[in-house]
Amino acid sequence: MIATTPKPPYYAVIFSSEVNQELEGYKEMSQQMVDLVKTQPGYLGHESAREELGITVSYWDSLDSIKKWKAVSEHLQAQKFGREKWYRAYKTRICLVERDYGFDSGLF
Amino acid sequence: MIATTPKPPYYAVIFSSEVNQELEGYKEMSQQMVDLVKTQPGYLGHESAREELGITVSYWDSLDSIKKWKAVSEHLQAQKFGREKWYRAYKTRICLVERDYGFDSGLF
Repeated sequence: MIATTPKPPYYAVIFSSEVNQELEGYKEMSQQMVDLVKTQPGYLGHESAREELGITVSYWDSLDSIKKWKAVSEHLQAQKFGREKWYRAYKTRICLVERDYGFDSGLF
Repeated sequence: MIATTPKPPYYAVIFSSEVNQELEGYKEMSQQMVDLVKTQPGYLGHESAREELGITVSYWDSLDSIKKWKAVSEHLQAQKFGREKWYRAYKTRICLVERDYGFDSGLF
């Protein structure tokens, strides 16, 4: 689902990743992180899709909230596993959303 | 592939979309737009993935380049078809990338 976010400005973290073939434990950890991120102060929503490349965008009220989420202990452990086991490569981009606009057919 | 982008600041356009079941012509038009966007002044790269939700992030050197790409005639036509035929909903977010960091296992 497209995330429902407030009027800009707000922040986005674009996390792009390429995974290894061996992904033991990855799906479970991903779900744990999804459950956990939703409880974080300043979290506004997230969107995710994966084909060859995975893209997860999370939305935040401030840089401070992003920084605190990065330092949550379970998340630090997930980041460590990610580097050691699952990700072949990743890139994180911290962005200020300056403007947004959209379209909704109203049929759902 | 993760896009190779210059040192921040630069811009990102996050395009999140939900498509209809009937997608005649969509794949061809998407490929045309990928070919076309790569030729645009100020284009730095893009990343794309789709499951239920589609996320395409394109990277740009300036707001002016983003504005000009939005107004390219073939792209305007694609946007029109998108609203009329293919997309159930979409959201476009214009962002300033303030910081980025990454990891590459070096195995590829």
